[in-house]
Formats: sequence, C-alpha cells, structure tokens
Amino acid sequence: MKFSVSHRDGYARCGRLQLAHGSIDTPAFMPVGTAGAVKTVTPDEVRLSGAQIILGNTFHLGLRPGTGVIETHGGLHRFMGWDGPILTDSGGFQVWSLAADREIHDTGVRFRSPVDGSTVFLGPEESMQVQQGLGSDIAMTFDECTDYPATYEDAKKSMGLSMRWAARCRDAHGGGKQLLFGIAQGSVFPELRSSSLESLVSLGFDGYALGGLSVGEPKTKMYEILDDCTPLMPTDAPRYLMGVGKPEDLLRGVAAGIDMFDCVLPTRNARNGWLYTWDGVLKVKNARHRQDTRPIDETCSCACCSTYSRSYLRHLFVNNEGLGQRLCTVHNLWFFGQLMQEIRLAIEEKRFDSFHKGFLLRYLE
Amino acid sequence: MKFSVSHRDGYARCGRLQLAHGSIDTPAFMPVGTAGAVKTVTPDEVRLSGAQIILGNTFHLGLRPGTGVIETHGGLHRFMGWDGPILTDSGGFQVWSLAADREIHDTGVRFRSPVDGSTVFLGPEESMQVQQGLGSDIAMTFDECTDYPATYEDAKKSMGLSMRWAARCRDAHGGGKQLLFGIAQGSVFPELRSSSLESLVSLGFDGYALGGLSVGEPKTKMYEILDDCTPLMPTDAPRYLMGVGKPEDLLRGVAAGIDMFDCVLPTRNARNGWLYTWDGVLKVKNARHRQDTRPIDETCSCACCSTYSRSYLRHLFVNNEGLGQRLCTVHNLWFFGQLMQEIRLAIEEKRFDSFHKGFLLRYLE
Repeated sequence: MKFSVSHRDGYARCGRLQLAHGSIDTPAFMPVGTAGAVKTVTPDEVRLSGAQIILGNTFHLGLRPGTGVIETHGGLHRFMGWDGPILTDSGGFQVWSLAADREIHDTGVRFRSPVDGSTVFLGPEESMQVQQGLGSDIAMTFDECTDYPATYEDAKKSMGLSMRWAARCRDAHGGGKQLLFGIAQGSVFPELRSSSLESLVSLGFDGYALGGLSVGEPKTKMYEILDDCTPLMPTDAPRYLMGVGKPEDLLRGVAAGIDMFDCVLPTRNARNGWLYTWDGVLKVKNARHRQDTRPIDETCSCACCSTYSRSYLRHLFVNNEGLGQRLCTVHNLWFFGQLMQEIRLAIEEKRFDSFHKGFLLRYLE
Repeated sequence: MKFSVSHRDGYARCGRLQLAHGSIDTPAFMPVGTAGAVKTVTPDEVRLSGAQIILGNTFHLGLRPGTGVIETHGGLHRFMGWDGPILTDSGGFQVWSLAADREIHDTGVRFRSPVDGSTVFLGPEESMQVQQGLGSDIAMTFDECTDYPATYEDAKKSMGLSMRWAARCRDAHGGGKQLLFGIAQGSVFPELRSSSLESLVSLGFDGYALGGLSVGEPKTKMYEILDDCTPLMPTDAPRYLMGVGKPEDLLRGVAAGIDMFDCVLPTRNARNGWLYTWDGVLKVKNARHRQDTRPIDETCSCACCSTYSRSYLRHLFVNNEGLGQRLCTVHNLWFFGQLMQEIRLAIEEKRFDSFHKGFLLRYLE
C-alpha cells in the first residue's frame, strides 16, 4: 500500500499517498476539472494554488471528446497538460444528475446523451474501460447515487446494486499503476452504510469513498453518517468524502478522519464573484466594492490579491470580462490550497481542534 | 522629443519611443484593452507576448467605471495592473461606431450611453480630461471619424471639425508626462488628408495618427492614402495607423513608414478560434482538428503551443470552456509580438523588403 499516515490528532490524520504521477499530501482537496480543464485556469495556476491532484469526469470526457481522442494523446494528463495525479470519478453521479431517459439495468444504465441525444450505455465494465483510457491515477467504482430522500427499502436496493457493480469494477479493473477506490452508498441509514462498507472492505480496494452525500440531506445528517462511517473505513487506506465541500465541511470531514475531498465550489463560486476569505465569503459584485482599492483579502498572497483591487474585479464582472472569473478562480483555489495546508500543519502540531474552532469562529462570524 | 529612429530601410524605419512608463521599440503593435483588460489575459501574459504598450478606451472606461474610480486607484495602470506604457484613444471612434442618438455640435457630441441610457456629452475638453484622469502615456485628440463612403464636401466638413477639435485638445491638454498625438482625417481624399496633416503639424503634436481608415474602404484605397500621407508626416515624430490590422496590413504600413498600430484582431479572432500562423490563419474549431495532437504551430514557442494540441483547443471551444479563448489569445498575441520583432530585425538588417515579400508568399498561399 502506498498510503502512509504520518500524524494523528484525534480522528484527524495527515499522511501521503503515492500515485503514478506523484504523491499527494493528505488531507487533500481536489479541484474539479470536469471536461479536461479546471474552468478558466491553466494547470500551472492550479499547481501554484497548492493543489496536488485534480478530478476529471468520466461521464463528460467519455461522451466528449471520447476516450479515442484522449488515448491518441496518451491519456488525460497529456491531453490537458496536467502532469500531476488525477482522480476520475466513475460517471455514476452524473448519470444520476445529468442524464435523461435513464433505464437502470443490473448491467448498467442506458441513457440519452446530453451532448448529442444518442443512446449511451454505461455500466461498471464500461466505466472501468473509460477510466483506463483516461489513464487516471485513481479510478472510482461505478455506482448508483441514491435519491434523497429515499425509503429504507429503496436505499437498500440501490446500495445493493452499487455493491454488485463495485464487485464487477474490481474484476474488470486493469490494475497496473491505476488505483481503484470503492464508493459506499446507503443514503442516511447507518445500517446500510455499514453494510456497504463491509461489502467494499471484503472486496478490497485501494481507498474507500463515501458517495451519495451532500445531495440535499440536512447538514447534521451528513455529519452523523460521517461519524458513523469513518470508524468502519480501514485506517491504512485513504478515505474520500465525495463532492464536499464548503470550508466548514472540509474541516468537519477532517475531524472525522477523512483524507480526500473534491468540490466545484471554489471554482464555480469564483465564476459568480463569491470569494473565500478567512473572514467568510466576500461577494465582489456587490456595489459597495465599487471604489474599494483593497484586495479581496489583505493577508492573501495569491496572484489575484497581489495585484488587483475589489473595485477592479467588480468592474470586470460588470463588464462581463472573463478575466474576472479567472482571477477569482485563482484566488479561491489558493484559499482552498492554503486552508488544506493549514489543516495539515495543525494536525502535525497536534492543535487541529483549536484550529478548527478558531477557523469557524472567524469564518462564520 | 523622446522619439529616435535608429534604422531605416526604404521608407520602413525602426526606433524607440520613450514614454512615462518605459520605452517601446517601433514599429510597435498595441494589443487592445478596451475596458481595462486585454480580454481573457493578464498583464503578465501580454508582456510575455512581446507587447510593450497597450491601448485603453476613453469611451468605455469613461462611461464605466468612470474616471473617479480609476483615479482612486491612481490611474489606469494601477487599476488594471499593467505597469508599461498605455495609449488611450480619444473616444471619437466609439462615439461614431457605438453611440446612439448622436447630436454633433461644434463643442462636441451628445449621445445616449450604451451602458445606462443616460445622456452623455463628450468633446475635446472632456476627452482630454478623461485621458488625463486615466493617466495614459499617450493621449489622442478627439476627432470625428468620417463615415465611409462620404462625399468630398461631407468629408471636408467632418475633417474641418476634427481639426478645430484637435486645436482645442492641444489647448486643453495638461501636458506633463503625457504625450498628445493628433489624428488626421479626410476619408479617401488625398487633398483633404494632406490639408488635415498640415493643420496638425502647424499645431504641433508629439505624434501623428491616421484615423478613419480600415472603416470599409477598399484595401487599395487605404494603401494609396497611406503612401500619400506618410511623406507628409514629420520624420522625427512617431506615426500611428489606427485600427490596423491584419499581418499583411501591418507589413504594408511599416513599408510606408508607419511606427505604431493597434487592432482587436489578434484578441477577437482568438476568442473565435482563429489562430495566426506564418502559414496563414488556422481555424481550430474545424472538425478536422478533432484528433490532431500537433500544436497550432509546430515552430511556435508560446505558452499555448508548448503544451496544448489543436485537438485539446478544439475540445475546449466545443465545450465552451473559456480557457480555450484564453490560450488562443496567448498564441495570437505571441504571433503578433514575434511578427513585430521580425519586422524590426529585418529593418535593422536592411532586408525588410525581402522579409515582407517572403512573409506574404508563405502567409497568403
């Protein structure tokens, strides 16, 4: 196993995960590069933010440009010019959230492509094949994201399907340098979550993920599941909380023992002028910033805050200048990068709990 | 005078113009930063392309965010984070091309603001005041861009107005470190152009520009005017051909003795996937680039060509990823930067004519 935990502080832990394209420090946040690009920014800018691994989407890339084009380039890394680690999701979540006319079979899902309206079939074997073609460092099992809310019976049925698919992914996975993580489902039912993790552990994966959270359930429910589940996840493998999240959720996840996160929030919010700071979110499009010559965050040393004022960024948004979205993306990714670095340092120095509390006190004020 | 010509080759010449924020090598191409940003790229990226001076728009910036906001920052340089020279146009061209309900008076133009529909008045004094507030290195006289086609009488009347305005700009200009260039009008009538330049020269400006070209007249007409006019422009002051242009037009302008150019083409075309290469324009959105792993130009060392394939760039456009427009802008600005550098070198080495012919032979094939 190429994952080593170097420090623990309560349930929180930091460590290092060695991957085909380099190692990453955990807890790690993965910026999302849905269609082969972290929107508006270059790989260099992503790297400068402190991010060591990004996420690519099997669903999007498999449909367009298709694995053929990406394989011609020798994989997603070369295609998009990012030479660090990449995790690819399996497409399960997007089939659930984006595809129309879904027909779910035991072999996989038939749906209408949002790209060209054609009928597409994606199942565990197909997902493994696409992720192999993309050449990611970490592949994820193909799963069904359970609707929220769901009855216990429906959630059980759905989780059962995801587990059968996980077994087939395990069999179909080519191995080699690509790791494979299993995804636990089970909605907000502790018993189902526990059973799902048991199945995954008995199959054996390189890492374990919690899927189907942050899909509309109350925050307290997510935290309960988190606290119930992490003790059931192997200590010697990375734990990944999918699709999370806000800074306060990252901290809560780390507190429960999570090692990896991904979320579109820093990039998506940046494109909407929502900027993360240690004092909370700043909405730069607001008229009160019209004449404000201060940077987003006077203590921040990102490329955006080093040069540009709130007034200028607001001006770019008002004028629909794409540069504004880009500069704000640079800032938000930097903030998430700094936050993860501070988290790792706090764990190393055994003061994570006070860092956590101090952060919330200032951030949520 | 802070302009010195170091080499001549036929009418073509190269030299250096010292400005408040640094000196520029001529012949120079100025990327356009209409609303305080060269669209999609940062000042650093503009600088890396070889551009030493950019153009800002009085009309756009005066209306939004207004000089008040920019003065609060200490000027346009600080506002947009570009510390090199800036030339500001006077607003005359945009009043002509963008403003509705224009009423032209001898004191200036009343029009409806495209930003908020309010009534705005812009005349020579107002334009000088805005350009002073922006703090540009070079201000331009406020002029009326003559419609094309225009009768001799209309063109004469319009040119006369521009010359009266030029005189008032001369009087109203604050001086200091900001240079002031006069703009000649006169449509395609050599006699009017000649008379316009005479007026400007007798007023005395730091540089002389040809305005009202590239507005729909046949290319041969523009070339004729160019050849007629440049001998009438003082040899010891920079000559600026406004709003031009395509690579072949830059070369034609240089051949006639022009020192400065500006145009939106490299940036606007980039956002449309039209890429400049020594072999002509490459349209990267074209389906034939779907699997093409080659860069835009295999001989190009710009940040785009060093990393990204035609296939990837096409993919970004197809997916409406703004990064594509940005990477293509980096390439096009680099191409224009390289072209100007090659032009200057060819003049220094007294082989401009053969460079010019060789370029056209390859580029227009």
